[in-house]
Amino acid sequence: MRRIFFILFLTTFFVGFSQQNTLTIDDAVLGYYKGLYPTSLQNLKWVDDSNTYVFQKENELIFTDAKTGKKIKSLSLVQLQVIYPTLKRFPLLQEITPTHFSFRNRNSVEIVNYVTNQKKISINFDEKAQNTEFNSKAEAIAYTLDNNLYIGTASNTKIAVTKIDDENIVSGQAIHRSEFGIVKGTFWSPEGNFLAFYQKDESNVTNYPLVDITTYPASLNNIKYPMAGQESEKAKIGIYNLKNNTTSYLNIDTSDEHYLTNLSWTPDEKYVLVAEINRDQNHVWFNKYNIETGEKVNTLFEETNSKWTEPEYDAVFLPNSNTNFLWLSERDGFMNIYEYTTEGKLVKQLTNFNWVVTGIIGFDVKGKHVFISGTGKDARESHTFKVNLKSGKYDQITKQEGTHSTLINSFGDYFIDSYSSLNIPKNIKIGAIKNGKSTTILEAENPLKEYNLGSTEFLTLKGVDGTDLYAKITKPANFDPTKKYPVLVYVYGGPHAQLVTNSWLGGSSLWMPAFATLENYIVFTLDNRGSAHRGFAFESVIHRNLGDAEIEDQLTGIDYLKSLDYVDESRIAVNGWSYGGFMTTSLMLRNPGVFTTAVAGGPVTDWKYYEVMYGERYMDTPQENPEGYKKAKVHNYISNLDGKMLLIHGSVDPTVVPQHSMTLLQEAVKQKVQVDFFTYPMHPHNVRGMDRVHLVKKMLEYIIENNK
Amino acid sequence: MRRIFFILFLTTFFVGFSQQNTLTIDDAVLGYYKGLYPTSLQNLKWVDDSNTYVFQKENELIFTDAKTGKKIKSLSLVQLQVIYPTLKRFPLLQEITPTHFSFRNRNSVEIVNYVTNQKKISINFDEKAQNTEFNSKAEAIAYTLDNNLYIGTASNTKIAVTKIDDENIVSGQAIHRSEFGIVKGTFWSPEGNFLAFYQKDESNVTNYPLVDITTYPASLNNIKYPMAGQESEKAKIGIYNLKNNTTSYLNIDTSDEHYLTNLSWTPDEKYVLVAEINRDQNHVWFNKYNIETGEKVNTLFEETNSKWTEPEYDAVFLPNSNTNFLWLSERDGFMNIYEYTTEGKLVKQLTNFNWVVTGIIGFDVKGKHVFISGTGKDARESHTFKVNLKSGKYDQITKQEGTHSTLINSFGDYFIDSYSSLNIPKNIKIGAIKNGKSTTILEAENPLKEYNLGSTEFLTLKGVDGTDLYAKITKPANFDPTKKYPVLVYVYGGPHAQLVTNSWLGGSSLWMPAFATLENYIVFTLDNRGSAHRGFAFESVIHRNLGDAEIEDQLTGIDYLKSLDYVDESRIAVNGWSYGGFMTTSLMLRNPGVFTTAVAGGPVTDWKYYEVMYGERYMDTPQENPEGYKKAKVHNYISNLDGKMLLIHGSVDPTVVPQHSMTLLQEAVKQKVQVDFFTYPMHPHNVRGMDRVHLVKKMLEYIIENNK
Repeated sequence: MRRIFFILFLTTFFVGFSQQNTLTIDDAVLGYYKGLYPTSLQNLKWVDDSNTYVFQKENELIFTDAKTGKKIKSLSLVQLQVIYPTLKRFPLLQEITPTHFSFRNRNSVEIVNYVTNQKKISINFDEKAQNTEFNSKAEAIAYTLDNNLYIGTASNTKIAVTKIDDENIVSGQAIHRSEFGIVKGTFWSPEGNFLAFYQKDESNVTNYPLVDITTYPASLNNIKYPMAGQESEKAKIGIYNLKNNTTSYLNIDTSDEHYLTNLSWTPDEKYVLVAEINRDQNHVWFNKYNIETGEKVNTLFEETNSKWTEPEYDAVFLPNSNTNFLWLSERDGFMNIYEYTTEGKLVKQLTNFNWVVTGIIGFDVKGKHVFISGTGKDARESHTFKVNLKSGKYDQITKQEGTHSTLINSFGDYFIDSYSSLNIPKNIKIGAIKNGKSTTILEAENPLKEYNLGSTEFLTLKGVDGTDLYAKITKPANFDPTKKYPVLVYVYGGPHAQLVTNSWLGGSSLWMPAFATLENYIVFTLDNRGSAHRGFAFESVIHRNLGDAEIEDQLTGIDYLKSLDYVDESRIAVNGWSYGGFMTTSLMLRNPGVFTTAVAGGPVTDWKYYEVMYGERYMDTPQENPEGYKKAKVHNYISNLDGKMLLIHGSVDPTVVPQHSMTLLQEAVKQKVQVDFFTYPMHPHNVRGMDRVHLVKKMLEYIIENNK
Repeated sequence: MRRIFFILFLTTFFVGFSQQNTLTIDDAVLGYYKGLYPTSLQNLKWVDDSNTYVFQKENELIFTDAKTGKKIKSLSLVQLQVIYPTLKRFPLLQEITPTHFSFRNRNSVEIVNYVTNQKKISINFDEKAQNTEFNSKAEAIAYTLDNNLYIGTASNTKIAVTKIDDENIVSGQAIHRSEFGIVKGTFWSPEGNFLAFYQKDESNVTNYPLVDITTYPASLNNIKYPMAGQESEKAKIGIYNLKNNTTSYLNIDTSDEHYLTNLSWTPDEKYVLVAEINRDQNHVWFNKYNIETGEKVNTLFEETNSKWTEPEYDAVFLPNSNTNFLWLSERDGFMNIYEYTTEGKLVKQLTNFNWVVTGIIGFDVKGKHVFISGTGKDARESHTFKVNLKSGKYDQITKQEGTHSTLINSFGDYFIDSYSSLNIPKNIKIGAIKNGKSTTILEAENPLKEYNLGSTEFLTLKGVDGTDLYAKITKPANFDPTKKYPVLVYVYGGPHAQLVTNSWLGGSSLWMPAFATLENYIVFTLDNRGSAHRGFAFESVIHRNLGDAEIEDQLTGIDYLKSLDYVDESRIAVNGWSYGGFMTTSLMLRNPGVFTTAVAGGPVTDWKYYEVMYGERYMDTPQENPEGYKKAKVHNYISNLDGKMLLIHGSVDPTVVPQHSMTLLQEAVKQKVQVDFFTYPMHPHNVRGMDRVHLVKKMLEYIIENNK
């Protein structure tokens, strides 16, 4: 009897203990599916030309007046099911007007009059369609099937915009490996009368062979992969005229393999504006093409830079203007806004920030102000600003520190502000532009409040060149400064990325604080020179010498760690993926003795195996910069290995192709150096889904095992 | 001063200590190049039609009379250099007559009259030639370039035997993936007037894509790989007539993908004998074809077996007979010799051994006896026997226990016997057949005598079915039976191989005793049912159920190990390559708790990914034997993993294709099982050369690290 009681007591005790909840790696990696990330609001949108916003609550769409804060009405899934009986849950809305909304339903786009609760129209497309882009004015959808481009219309016509058999020619998809801000290959004209599209001719681009091991027997999957210094793709811009059903092409000679980027339409649909960049990526011509003739009308302006030029944003026309547009450029060292005319006249430099503009959100109804996003003075944050189009004077709309994402209504008088910070999981506010008064409509609970986790803190270190470097340090729960902790340095370090942000968890993956507490580790991350949102000088110091400045800055972080009494400086490990894999292997091999252990995922090991667009921007070609390529080539340091190093690669990685790891392994074997390797069969550049748990455990177990 | 003396003393001490020589893994793996394998004699041969044998001593060929033991003469490299000034070392001789010998010299075969020291003839061939086969009677060499077959003649004519553009058709090379004893694709007729050759049509055989990562970018290397149950190659036999320069083909319908094996000529050059095996491999037809007409003359005999039929030896005609030949067959359960006529009459079963004949060496001059090799009563040995062709009575020529390799002179009265055993590194004797009297001409020193190594001992265990199983156990130097040692079980376990042989080191690789002593390990190996030289019942028990009996027997070995006081039964690791990789993964996963650690190299993990010829012999097709394939599929046991498992695969393995390891990794990831993996870039099925040191260290370090 006493024995039974004793066991019961223990059970209770353990239940009690488990309510302090240790966050496991499994749960941390699958956190999104486990409800461990802050909640948000689905279908949060402005209704066009109104002060009404909508969001979804369970299976109901709630309409609220931003002015009064009052609920106007709601629309339930049950009501929608009258029209669409097979609909299982409330759909994700694309556009919403005071009377209609559109959504995608398997193989169609549906437009519904939600006032009368009647289907207005269905636009069907092929079930294998990809790269879909719906346009409500055209009441049509552009999509691709294999390498050709099609349009589906309301009359259920399937228009073949291109009919090209040659599989080297690809239409309607993103080109240039999605560099230069390219995210898609179709561009509806403002009134929906035309569809501009990208086309690339990859005839001269070499194949990279990937192997599909799921077939019987294994089979070849060739991808087109232009490697630095080798022949590249040739781009074209096609124009499909929906009125007369013709496809024409702009007359642009790309035999020099130059880039066609940042495509935009003039509001009158007569011209297309294109930023053309030479293959060397140090010269931009912003050109205007007449779509009628296909001929270039004029070059609006040019930009050159001895390092690189990288336009990333399309031209945005001022409201009600057919001639004046805003253009974002880093030409003064930070991404700022310039006003130009279509004749090429620079009206003015609108902003003159010494911080980075990250986009144009919208305008007010009178066209006097533009709303933009940018870091503001703290590069770790993201804010929304209202800029006077005449004077350039600006107000910060988002007041709270953190990372904000804002939607402005089409009148430009109200905003929806979603934000988080290190201390705020997710807040959503509705506010008035005029006076900034706002109402909080969501204050997400801390989804980790029941878990025993340590703290993440920001710090700023001085780099060797005097630059401020932002870092973060995550400590375990029950941190004891009199103890000595081992460290995991998590690194990315490449361009266009920032790991230290004032957002929930400080921008870290949830496994990092989980790991810190589970294994009594310090997790440390520093954004070195070359990373994003610090301006051109900070970013471009890496030009032609990838690795050098980045390593220098990471070692500043190491020096700091070593200065801490609670850090065991003999137990520092490093881990990173992709560019972070390049950094991880470089840090390990070029600084023997600093790290005991390195785990590099999908690492670039030799920039000559990386692609033309990204690779040559930063490194020029192997022919032009042999010393830089040699210095950055990880293979050249393999014999320095002092400790344990694990390389991991997706077996069908189309981004950093497996050749990077395989040649490094080959060199290690040749040099009699023992390294470790793992491959994730059939995974591309990242290991996602359920298998990601396996990956993270593989990495962390290796670190635990060897960082001793 | 005293300090200096002290250091000197230490140095001396270490020198003294190092003379006890610890054998390193590096030296053990590269043992052949380091002089750690027993010496032998180069160019050891009988001179045709004589009692004279030759061997090379440094750069001199010594001629000795076997009867008197007296040196007759010698021929030095310096003399040869009079004719061949560029010759750097004494060449490897092909044939030697009382006046001439031939050797291969880069792109030619040279025939030299060594009595007059004059070049007789040079037969040139293309420098890219492969599969060369010289024939002294034809004074011609057959060779292949890519997929076609050529003959080079003394008049320096290059004859295209085949001129086939279709790269799916391959001529003059070994077919059927070198199963059925096939080692080559060309067969000179006895008088050199014809060249028979194999041709295979691989049009229906699927490609397996291998990736060459040494090109820029990586490139595809497709190999033809017929997987079990899939379409296979179609074989042909061509006949080239050197007199009238015509190529013809035997009229054999192989649309059923049956096999053409064991090709031999009748001495009169009129017929070719071919063992034809159905794709099911349970029926042999031994057929005679008229080369003039290409038509089949008769089927000499048939053999069937419910498990498999596997002829491996060509017909060998009796001396001076055009009609009677010897044939080796396992039909009575052991490989024995049968005499047949070309009319198909079985004259007699010549031998009736309950052990295994392994080949025909030659005949005596009167044609009364045949010399054969075979295991003799101890299957771990290899001996030479003289068998009376009339009575079948036999004498054992080689008396000493061990593994003998014998050359008989063409008169059949003297032998050269090279042998080794567990205790004998290498001895070579010259002896008389008549009375067995012999002279030792080489007694190789123990190349390891300066190393501190333990012992290897043989043992015989009773299998669960009562069968004797041979095993060997290697102990470390300074073995102490009162201590507990960890164990490495090294396994192969597949057909046609035997790891426990009474030969130098007991047939082990040198790294095994080196490892045992370096790490204080026991290394254990057992030849399970299914392995070679024990007769058909022992071998064929595995039919349709690969893995089952083999595992059972290996576990008998484990039981034995566990019964030993000096074995730490909680520390047993297993390692093997190829079929041994199948065994290693199967043992580890199908018997959780037995082994702590498994290292499997180039493992077969699913027999459906293995090739038609070998795979279907043992497993039938996946369609015919779904249960057997399922049971043997390693993937099905991955979730049992209890301990650590490392898979290793050559990245371009054309034998056990990488799909075996890759699909097993994929299953492990899916089942959330942590396994380890390494790949040797650009290595095929084995890792050879200098890189082998890296491989062996990788394996052993993993075992040391995890077998705890």
